[in-house]
Amino acid sequence: MDRGYLQLYIGDGKGKTTAAIGLAIRALGAGLRVAFLQFFKPGDSSEVKILQQFYPRLLFKNFHSGKFIRGRPSEKLKAKIMEGYTSFKELLSERNFDLIILDEFVYALRWNIITISDFIEQLRNKPKQVEIVITGREAPKELIEIADLVTEMKKIKHYYDQGVKARWGIEK
Amino acid sequence: MDRGYLQLYIGDGKGKTTAAIGLAIRALGAGLRVAFLQFFKPGDSSEVKILQQFYPRLLFKNFHSGKFIRGRPSEKLKAKIMEGYTSFKELLSERNFDLIILDEFVYALRWNIITISDFIEQLRNKPKQVEIVITGREAPKELIEIADLVTEMKKIKHYYDQGVKARWGIEK
Repeated sequence: MDRGYLQLYIGDGKGKTTAAIGLAIRALGAGLRVAFLQFFKPGDSSEVKILQQFYPRLLFKNFHSGKFIRGRPSEKLKAKIMEGYTSFKELLSERNFDLIILDEFVYALRWNIITISDFIEQLRNKPKQVEIVITGREAPKELIEIADLVTEMKKIKHYYDQGVKARWGIEK
Repeated sequence: MDRGYLQLYIGDGKGKTTAAIGLAIRALGAGLRVAFLQFFKPGDSSEVKILQQFYPRLLFKNFHSGKFIRGRPSEKLKAKIMEGYTSFKELLSERNFDLIILDEFVYALRWNIITISDFIEQLRNKPKQVEIVITGREAPKELIEIADLVTEMKKIKHYYDQGVKARWGIEK
């Protein structure tokens, strides 16, 4: 690509991670190389085994470990997120991927595991050709400001509110 | 699945079709069978060749032909949409798929190629286990009413507004 942009998918509705998966698949179909870095989630969702089939054209990495303790990320979890962030910076400098997806990454900023100023500096200095996609419910306003595309996935209705549990193959 | 629901992805933001692709991939990963019926679009987007690799676990069908003439769908296009709708009804009665995606289908209702009352009757009488996903910018209120999950993809920012053209592997 001539120039890569920064896309954000935020909001409380279903469809953020699934849109990121869709973007990965579309990019693969065009012969682009995709890195899908997933944060905070266990990484055992049904789509993972499909995404992994496309290695090395698609690199899937999960950064989850440890838990939230009293509503705050544990030290173990923070260390894992930092590991993922280091991986992201390495991927940027290696320039082997056209599209880098940071799934659920906004929580790393929300919990201040990574500072917004450091992250924005990474984005400003990224190789021009690399497209970045970031997902997560709430994004800091600084990130929204520098993004080229922002879609808010807004919950109009959700069956969770009717007591439906997350289902294999649909939500996980 | 014990019970399939009706999911709608609407709104003016990027991410509706990509979320549908992501849902298809996740469902495949869980061993579900997926039918992806695409309406109005040419069907030559980059993701199509990836989706087709999963046949017969994933059936991709495109229903596009003819054009809009003076802002209205041509007879040829209408006939193709009707063909797709017949295909949808057949798939429902054959019960071979767990998830049926009707990508960009809301336009068929908007242009009254298919009446909302007929479509709602199909949905009400569908096999209980089948999950249905529908995408498209504007959905009639009757459809929103009977849907179990509705996400509005809301455009907060879009690089199209900055003059960026649709790119292979990202938008098409």
